[in-house]
Amino acid sequence: MSKPLILVSNDDGITSHGIRVLVEVMAEIGEVVVVAPDSPQSGMGHAITIGEPLRLYKTRLFKDLDVISYKCSGTPADCVKLAKHHVLKDRTPDLVVSGVNHGSNLAVSVLYSGTMSAAIEGAIEGFPAIGFSLSDFAQDADFSHTRDYIKHISQQVLEHGLGKGIALNVNFPPKQNEKIKGIKICRQANAHWEEEFDHRKDPYGRPYFWLAGNFVNNDKGEDSDVWAVDHNYVAVVPCQYDLTAHHAIARINEEWDF
Amino acid sequence: MSKPLILVSNDDGITSHGIRVLVEVMAEIGEVVVVAPDSPQSGMGHAITIGEPLRLYKTRLFKDLDVISYKCSGTPADCVKLAKHHVLKDRTPDLVVSGVNHGSNLAVSVLYSGTMSAAIEGAIEGFPAIGFSLSDFAQDADFSHTRDYIKHISQQVLEHGLGKGIALNVNFPPKQNEKIKGIKICRQANAHWEEEFDHRKDPYGRPYFWLAGNFVNNDKGEDSDVWAVDHNYVAVVPCQYDLTAHHAIARINEEWDF
Repeated sequence: MSKPLILVSNDDGITSHGIRVLVEVMAEIGEVVVVAPDSPQSGMGHAITIGEPLRLYKTRLFKDLDVISYKCSGTPADCVKLAKHHVLKDRTPDLVVSGVNHGSNLAVSVLYSGTMSAAIEGAIEGFPAIGFSLSDFAQDADFSHTRDYIKHISQQVLEHGLGKGIALNVNFPPKQNEKIKGIKICRQANAHWEEEFDHRKDPYGRPYFWLAGNFVNNDKGEDSDVWAVDHNYVAVVPCQYDLTAHHAIARINEEWDF
Repeated sequence: MSKPLILVSNDDGITSHGIRVLVEVMAEIGEVVVVAPDSPQSGMGHAITIGEPLRLYKTRLFKDLDVISYKCSGTPADCVKLAKHHVLKDRTPDLVVSGVNHGSNLAVSVLYSGTMSAAIEGAIEGFPAIGFSLSDFAQDADFSHTRDYIKHISQQVLEHGLGKGIALNVNFPPKQNEKIKGIKICRQANAHWEEEFDHRKDPYGRPYFWLAGNFVNNDKGEDSDVWAVDHNYVAVVPCQYDLTAHHAIARINEEWDF
């Protein structure tokens, strides 16, 4: 059997430590092609680049692993699109993976996450896709406890497939003394960010703002991604991209005057 | 009864014609505050600005309407966050509206849409929210047929509310000879973009790519947003931000070995 073809991207940029970890693990199970942003794209959500052209250059960053790689001036979603249409051309990836993100993408953060936008873009294009994130923002975060799980989850997806239009959002707890307890298949928690803006003045006296804030979880369920990571499990949320609030259609049809 | 407080944003930027139309209509039904990007943000999806500070300046663009307005260096989602936390402070908007976008935001485009990210950010913050888009990309598009519908839909939302965490995605057909047939409450069509990349060389011989493509609708349903706009109806899709593929959880729990 030929090796599966695996496309790797991320949102922290092609030089981050997290994507190196992901490429190393994927190189153990398949033929890997990397197309990733040439600079950090955190918080880019599902942005695409339509107002300006994209650059794409080959790199030698993963030559030691015999992995071909490209850096792209665009967003994570752009990378997956360019990979499909230009880099891979007539070849179809068996798996699209994104990450490993430096920082969690739990609950509603999936909407803001560049990591997950690459995975969801993969799902939109019709490929099984996974986004991996570690609940540790440090540049030099310890990913050692994630490697076996990344490999296992990827192999499960290659073996069983994912339903049409589904991408997995996988979040790892930070490295702790206690071993990870296992994998939980979860739903997105009903948690949110309570923003604060740090209001400052620049050296010229002009005001500016830093977005900051705290993550607040009011969701008491033990089946959510936040609960799982808080309790030292790997959280796996199957995601889809139909945002329709189907349950609201009947109510609006009943209540509205139109 | 006091006038409702209405927050207006968009993604084409505060100087676009579409936001002018929206502010004019909203000024007829409430007290309006505008916080919108200082430059075009199309395709920004649910991006937020976390790597650099935000600028926010008062403008006089809507002074003729007695409307206070601010231009912001960030994304549409940033604008809504800054509006809530800095501009409006202790006041709670009764409605958040975004648009009117120059160009449709149908089917999966809701994910890439800056217009809808402002509305969905409103819903996340707990406010009734609506994104309006016109299926006409022209800078000087004719919005005249949308005004009465924008007012009516906004008044329906102010009267009936929306369920918690729901934002409406409203798309108008382009101005045609035939009058709009009415409003349809729809689901997001299962349509997608088939991208093509236009591969060019710059004057220095270096390659670059333009993202382009065609919108392809394979969804035969007559209850979708694409069908409605194609048949000269106003499409109203209630959207929510839980991306969990709930139906997939049981299957993965059954099939996977973990």
